[in-house]
Amino acid sequence: MARPVLLFSGSWADLALEELAQQAGDWGYQGLELCCWGDHFEVQRALSEPDYCQQKLDLLSRHDLAVMVLSNHRVGQAVCDPIDRRHQALVPDYVWGDGSPAGVQQRAAEEMTATVQAAEKLGVGVVGGFGGSALWSYVVGYPGPTPQVVREGIEDFVHKYTPILDACRDHGVRFAFEVHPGQIAFDLYSTEMVLDALSGREEFGLLFDPSHLHWQGVDPVEFVRRFAERIYHVHVKDATLTLNGRSGLLGSYLPYGDPRRGWDFRAPGHGGIDWEAVIRTLNEIGYDGPLAVELKDPGMNREYGADEACKFVKRLDFEPARPGGGEAFRPS
Amino acid sequence: MARPVLLFSGSWADLALEELAQQAGDWGYQGLELCCWGDHFEVQRALSEPDYCQQKLDLLSRHDLAVMVLSNHRVGQAVCDPIDRRHQALVPDYVWGDGSPAGVQQRAAEEMTATVQAAEKLGVGVVGGFGGSALWSYVVGYPGPTPQVVREGIEDFVHKYTPILDACRDHGVRFAFEVHPGQIAFDLYSTEMVLDALSGREEFGLLFDPSHLHWQGVDPVEFVRRFAERIYHVHVKDATLTLNGRSGLLGSYLPYGDPRRGWDFRAPGHGGIDWEAVIRTLNEIGYDGPLAVELKDPGMNREYGADEACKFVKRLDFEPARPGGGEAFRPS
Amino acid sequence: MARPVLLFSGSWADLALEELAQQAGDWGYQGLELCCWGDHFEVQRALSEPDYCQQKLDLLSRHDLAVMVLSNHRVGQAVCDPIDRRHQALVPDYVWGDGSPAGVQQRAAEEMTATVQAAEKLGVGVVGGFGGSALWSYVVGYPGPTPQVVREGIEDFVHKYTPILDACRDHGVRFAFEVHPGQIAFDLYSTEMVLDALSGREEFGLLFDPSHLHWQGVDPVEFVRRFAERIYHVHVKDATLTLNGRSGLLGSYLPYGDPRRGWDFRAPGHGGIDWEAVIRTLNEIGYDGPLAVELKDPGMNREYGADEACKFVKRLDFEPARPGGGEAFRPS
Amino acid sequence: MARPVLLFSGSWADLALEELAQQAGDWGYQGLELCCWGDHFEVQRALSEPDYCQQKLDLLSRHDLAVMVLSNHRVGQAVCDPIDRRHQALVPDYVWGDGSPAGVQQRAAEEMTATVQAAEKLGVGVVGGFGGSALWSYVVGYPGPTPQVVREGIEDFVHKYTPILDACRDHGVRFAFEVHPGQIAFDLYSTEMVLDALSGREEFGLLFDPSHLHWQGVDPVEFVRRFAERIYHVHVKDATLTLNGRSGLLGSYLPYGDPRRGWDFRAPGHGGIDWEAVIRTLNEIGYDGPLAVELKDPGMNREYGADEACKFVKRLDFEPARPGGGEAFRPS
Amino acid sequence: MARPVLLFSGSWADLALEELAQQAGDWGYQGLELCCWGDHFEVQRALSEPDYCQQKLDLLSRHDLAVMVLSNHRVGQAVCDPIDRRHQALVPDYVWGDGSPAGVQQRAAEEMTATVQAAEKLGVGVVGGFGGSALWSYVVGYPGPTPQVVREGIEDFVHKYTPILDACRDHGVRFAFEVHPGQIAFDLYSTEMVLDALSGREEFGLLFDPSHLHWQGVDPVEFVRRFAERIYHVHVKDATLTLNGRSGLLGSYLPYGDPRRGWDFRAPGHGGIDWEAVIRTLNEIGYDGPLAVELKDPGMNREYGADEACKFVKRLDFEPARPGGGEAFRPS
Amino acid sequence: MARPVLLFSGSWADLALEELAQQAGDWGYQGLELCCWGDHFEVQRALSEPDYCQQKLDLLSRHDLAVMVLSNHRVGQAVCDPIDRRHQALVPDYVWGDGSPAGVQQRAAEEMTATVQAAEKLGVGVVGGFGGSALWSYVVGYPGPTPQVVREGIEDFVHKYTPILDACRDHGVRFAFEVHPGQIAFDLYSTEMVLDALSGREEFGLLFDPSHLHWQGVDPVEFVRRFAERIYHVHVKDATLTLNGRSGLLGSYLPYGDPRRGWDFRAPGHGGIDWEAVIRTLNEIGYDGPLAVELKDPGMNREYGADEACKFVKRLDFEPARPGGGEAFRPS
Repeated sequence: MARPVLLFSGSWADLALEELAQQAGDWGYQGLELCCWGDHFEVQRALSEPDYCQQKLDLLSRHDLAVMVLSNHRVGQAVCDPIDRRHQALVPDYVWGDGSPAGVQQRAAEEMTATVQAAEKLGVGVVGGFGGSALWSYVVGYPGPTPQVVREGIEDFVHKYTPILDACRDHGVRFAFEVHPGQIAFDLYSTEMVLDALSGREEFGLLFDPSHLHWQGVDPVEFVRRFAERIYHVHVKDATLTLNGRSGLLGSYLPYGDPRRGWDFRAPGHGGIDWEAVIRTLNEIGYDGPLAVELKDPGMNREYGADEACKFVKRLDFEPARPGGGEAFRPS
Repeated sequence: MARPVLLFSGSWADLALEELAQQAGDWGYQGLELCCWGDHFEVQRALSEPDYCQQKLDLLSRHDLAVMVLSNHRVGQAVCDPIDRRHQALVPDYVWGDGSPAGVQQRAAEEMTATVQAAEKLGVGVVGGFGGSALWSYVVGYPGPTPQVVREGIEDFVHKYTPILDACRDHGVRFAFEVHPGQIAFDLYSTEMVLDALSGREEFGLLFDPSHLHWQGVDPVEFVRRFAERIYHVHVKDATLTLNGRSGLLGSYLPYGDPRRGWDFRAPGHGGIDWEAVIRTLNEIGYDGPLAVELKDPGMNREYGADEACKFVKRLDFEPARPGGGEAFRPS
Repeated sequence: MARPVLLFSGSWADLALEELAQQAGDWGYQGLELCCWGDHFEVQRALSEPDYCQQKLDLLSRHDLAVMVLSNHRVGQAVCDPIDRRHQALVPDYVWGDGSPAGVQQRAAEEMTATVQAAEKLGVGVVGGFGGSALWSYVVGYPGPTPQVVREGIEDFVHKYTPILDACRDHGVRFAFEVHPGQIAFDLYSTEMVLDALSGREEFGLLFDPSHLHWQGVDPVEFVRRFAERIYHVHVKDATLTLNGRSGLLGSYLPYGDPRRGWDFRAPGHGGIDWEAVIRTLNEIGYDGPLAVELKDPGMNREYGADEACKFVKRLDFEPARPGGGEAFRPS
Repeated sequence: MARPVLLFSGSWADLALEELAQQAGDWGYQGLELCCWGDHFEVQRALSEPDYCQQKLDLLSRHDLAVMVLSNHRVGQAVCDPIDRRHQALVPDYVWGDGSPAGVQQRAAEEMTATVQAAEKLGVGVVGGFGGSALWSYVVGYPGPTPQVVREGIEDFVHKYTPILDACRDHGVRFAFEVHPGQIAFDLYSTEMVLDALSGREEFGLLFDPSHLHWQGVDPVEFVRRFAERIYHVHVKDATLTLNGRSGLLGSYLPYGDPRRGWDFRAPGHGGIDWEAVIRTLNEIGYDGPLAVELKDPGMNREYGADEACKFVKRLDFEPARPGGGEAFRPS
Repeated sequence: MARPVLLFSGSWADLALEELAQQAGDWGYQGLELCCWGDHFEVQRALSEPDYCQQKLDLLSRHDLAVMVLSNHRVGQAVCDPIDRRHQALVPDYVWGDGSPAGVQQRAAEEMTATVQAAEKLGVGVVGGFGGSALWSYVVGYPGPTPQVVREGIEDFVHKYTPILDACRDHGVRFAFEVHPGQIAFDLYSTEMVLDALSGREEFGLLFDPSHLHWQGVDPVEFVRRFAERIYHVHVKDATLTLNGRSGLLGSYLPYGDPRRGWDFRAPGHGGIDWEAVIRTLNEIGYDGPLAVELKDPGMNREYGADEACKFVKRLDFEPARPGGGEAFRPS
Repeated sequence: MARPVLLFSGSWADLALEELAQQAGDWGYQGLELCCWGDHFEVQRALSEPDYCQQKLDLLSRHDLAVMVLSNHRVGQAVCDPIDRRHQALVPDYVWGDGSPAGVQQRAAEEMTATVQAAEKLGVGVVGGFGGSALWSYVVGYPGPTPQVVREGIEDFVHKYTPILDACRDHGVRFAFEVHPGQIAFDLYSTEMVLDALSGREEFGLLFDPSHLHWQGVDPVEFVRRFAERIYHVHVKDATLTLNGRSGLLGSYLPYGDPRRGWDFRAPGHGGIDWEAVIRTLNEIGYDGPLAVELKDPGMNREYGADEACKFVKRLDFEPARPGGGEAFRPS
């Protein structure tokens, strides 16, 4: 379908953007999903320095790369999470500040609003990200939450993201929220609940990444069909089940790549996702936005993987039927 | 094998023990796993009233019921959990006190030690229970814990449970820890980590409940073989996967019994557990303790289920081979 | 749940009703789904002879059998089918008449209306049956029908059944239409189309028989959930796939029982239907009508099968949970 | 094996042959299966105009395309089908005539004989096609046909196709009948019945298209082995099951491409056919005729698909072992 | 179908026949498959002592047990096997003699002929047994046998069993050869080869034991259909696959019952055999001989198992349909 | 990972080495696993002729081919096997001699020692091969071996291979024993037994060929993990299960390529091996030796296959992750 193939820059934050852009261009990518950590994109500089955005765009265009999505998963996570020491590594120092939970959450929310403003300056229509969750620790543990507790947790998310979504409305930007474990919405029905709670406001849509659904047993095809009009961005990442009787789906605290885990991430096409069905369904709903390769495969050299993945996505992304095509054999 | 078939009393805490005992006897159970909530067993009264334990034993023996395990899952949960409002419903008022997290944890630990003492008074050799976990919210969410954080969480459990296990040693009681989501050990490899951290002290063993392993993809047979000498108690509870493309294993915040969930509990024999294989493996390792029916099936009348489950377990529990049996056809 | 267990009399039309009733009572059935062929029930006599219905009821009550459903599948089939020589064997002589297609269809429709009137006289609230279809030959063949042709076929059904449903309304009877290959509605989506075309009039509901869905690949559980409020009657019949590479689902013109077929009918519990899931879903939607055993197993003696099936259904039909049951372990 | 790769022209009847030939040559096809509808090939002109055939051959040879099969599925369908309004769109006006069923059937049979004569003029040894069926509406519906009815339907086919096969014999042409739903033979055992009824006359063989077998549950490998000496032509078309609990194999009257269907067609390699096994079995039986791509994929642009399919078939069609090859490691 | 349910006595050769008969009668068996080892049946005494056979029959009839099959697997094995030290434990001393291979084979063949004579004296029409194989070590190893070597091995079997089968013919007895690994015929195609080599002589038929086919991947149903007229006796024994990634089908030299094996035997109904399909197929071919329980389950007490298995077989063995039954719903 | 891709020369012993080398170079191979039969490599000439080895190396280097493994499967087989007529075709005349079993075994052992010496002269560090087995005929047959018999068979292997392994030690060569049916070690647990019996001496490791494990039900990934430090060489060969109810895993004496077999060999990527998982596991254990294509596919032209397989392996063999790669998205 010739959708643009992007590379998610966040997996390469240890590289300077210049270096990454050079390689991404060589591999054949047509653009980046630019992430707000490392030196790739700094929100406050973008707002305060007049040339910052243009310089980034110039740098990328030298390698024939466009920017179509600006993402800030790390800071978004701190907006609704109960803050603990793990979050210090996720956010800029000026967001962490003194580390008091309420303060961090408040500054993180302001930084997300700033990210929306920066996106407008950069000429990008979609901000991607996480949101954090007050409810995460209650999922599948003991004791489970009462319906009342669930309702309050979702309302907390609505309350904290409403100003950010208002900024989206005012700046002509859409927020693509990544459905993902650890977030307020992590599977099909929890996504329904959150969309209901937001009363369907149009600024809020979904970043669809099938890898996070696959290992939970959720069919990515059903997910896309259910939220057809809300798919605002797509990640191409794969996952595989490695259940052998001893491993389990909750992962035993083991890091990615440990062969004792019950599931793991894979480069696109190296896992269990039925990409043929995913592409057909994206065609079916008329999604024509970008496909962003998020490369995270603990068993593969990432340069090798990024090169191969770009070719994989281009080969995969066939053209959908035009109305009437292929029916010449049948009576009309 | 004629292992004793018990009924886990905790699912019937809304009934007075007298009433439950009557029914359990009628259904054919040979004893109870007696739980320390409702009026079934009150730890402080057991320690302070001279006749309390004997009266309980008398009540049960009138219905031909023995007590073989004393369980205190609810209070155990508060020992290591970060305390929040959900815990108030789990523990007695004198444990909750002012509700300050450190105080609740401290008093919960003392109550577990008291439970061990009460078990000795009751003449019971096994205390069953949960333990809580400082790490639960880090499982499968974002951001994941570093190995250092995992290590500290497990050490926290060891630190808090050491006095309780010391009491076990002093009072001739063993602690059967239930491997379960929400606990420090919830699958095979996390159980390995916890047993390693405890340096194999003999007071600490496992309450094996296959239902919690099944939906995670962990094979109960592999679990029993791996921890053969540490199976101190067994729950007979079933679970079923209800994945249909839209439902997911993390459950979408939905209560048990909601058909949109990706898995659910079932009465024994009504789910996906391979009980034939479980019994053969318990035979293989020589487990000769009780089998306790924990009845939790959101689609079945619990009286109907308890009656049927008792028959199911008795039919299931066939005798293992005696050495040399069945080999008369082969050359010796 | 103690739903009444009936025997579908139509599979025994070669026996006099007296003889069948004797046996059905002995096997433990609580009633019959009485069919309007053989001597079991004659519609015109029921309308013209004052004592006919009472004599049938008396006969059955001598064997402790109730009548809860009156069925007329054979005549119903001729209402919308293009009539050919096969239909002569299905309908009474006075319906066949001269065999001209339009005349047979017209007289069959009148007979169905008469069946509704007879049901009222008999004191039965549900009439079961087939409906025939002008579209059947277009399903999966070549050339396929255009959407216009499909629409007209469904409208033909609505047109021909409207007087019959009007009679239902006037006589306080509901029509339970059996979703089945050969009928206008034969799977989930075709049932949706027909219900839509009837604008949801309440006299029209479904006779749910999972055996006809199973071999088509339709999940009976999804079907029951989708049409929860429209399940007016249930058949307990099983089916099995016997695909071995050479056999096929369209059956190769082979009669039931031929081992070369790709699927076949089975006595309840001897096929591939997940009855546990079916019963749980009937419980979930609150269906409290009868369960009628339709015995059709080409490999089993039918007396043996009827006896066993009655016990099977009684054992299967467990009581659903009462609100609040089984939750005593969880915080409230 | 370097079998010739053809494109089935019938799916492109909306294009002029000149235009199709240009594209087919560019994509790499080595010939066409030429269909007798659209302007691709007109049977009566071929018989009446002296240069017609040569001009077609010249046109195709300009694009390096050969003609190896001449197909007339649409007219063949009308030979045995009960004629209804759908057939008017399938046949030329002079075959339809006044539309009286017997007349249409008769003229369709004569046109098939003419097609055989035209094939000889064109220098082509195989005519492909459908045949229609008097029995189709009796497959899987209600009431089923008696064995007598089946026998008569098959004899009707034999009776009507005998003159056409006689023409084949006289003109040195073989008829490749496509086994397909809607035809007298649609799976393995019905094909056996038809071949038996024809007493094995050599002019009659099979057009093997695995897509029509796959969704019925028939294994294409078993089919090829069973009729090894009767495979006269091969279509390369794929199909996929899309069963999700709600969809069914009988398709709910839904058009191809509708995501609610239980199966659908796919471009080669994009469905569930095990092409590796198909090619190995064609090698095993020594089939050395052409492989014709019939492109029908409701989710793929047909130009994209035709281009890709040609490459797919060439890559797939590996060389079989030569006798003795690969055994040098083993003792002789 | 009320086929007689027998107990294979060979698995109880450590018990005196008197003791076994007492138990078998209590468990509900209707007869024994009497084995020629232990004290159950001694061939030479049966031939030389006038009352021997009658005394055995009297003993058994005191417990309401019939004898329907006489089996001598152990001696039969030595007829064609390359003799090694393992065989000494299988045969009586007078067959072993000096242990020279040719002598042992010769005396074993004579003992099998004597077994046939003894069967006639006992009034039993079927002798069951093994045959040994000169080819066994060539199956799946390296280097494989040439077709010439295979042919010679099968001819060796024919040559050595011809005198035994001649005796069968002369004494009115049939030989039921058990298809089993280690024998000349061990799966479907090797059984075809052996039957072909014997030119279909009627004295030679098969002892069908599905457990030996199941773990090899051979479907017992296909086997019964293929050799319908040659099933002379049936063993009811089960087997289970225990593949977990590490275990393998060749068993790693591990004894039965070792959990590291890739398959193992099971009591009937406790393994992977589809008994429903087996019984339906025995019904289909009209087998009306006995069903003999061979109890070999390394994880189950054999007394428990024998008791349960007798009930299992009786419940399983339902009556097949009578012609015409169950079709009353369909037009005739 | 850029491991060298070799071609196993033994499957091409009918070609002169010169001819094979030419082709192997053209296909893109980087070396050969050179086999000691045909004219590829003659052990006695290598030891007796001063220039023999250098000439072989020169010949190969003209085609840019290296030698990394020297293999002598055929002679190795005769060391422990009970010798029969099949072995004459496997070994040189001077090893066969008079064919007396003990003499053949003795001379085969000496030839294996000579092969080790020749490897040193050739500059090759790994000798590959089979070993034969005194126990093979006891695997899965009847009567099974006693544990004592198994123990003695394994000790026989240790005894006969000890001098050969001593030569390895003295000449700086490692022996890669191919785990394979027909050998003393053929699956995971039998390999454990043999390694234990050899007390872990370092000269003895494994030639891992997943095709021989796959059809036995052993997971190649588990095998590699279990013996991570003992994988001395790898064969890339595929296998497929072709079970259809009639075929079986023991193969019915049928030759490779016969469609009635239950499994068969396949060119790499054309069978059932999960190569993605195999490569990831070889990466995981740090195996950096060669990957040798052993081409044996009874349905594919071997030249076609060798060409395709070289490309397949190069594409498959992706680079593993470098420490730290791909983690830039996560907090450090």
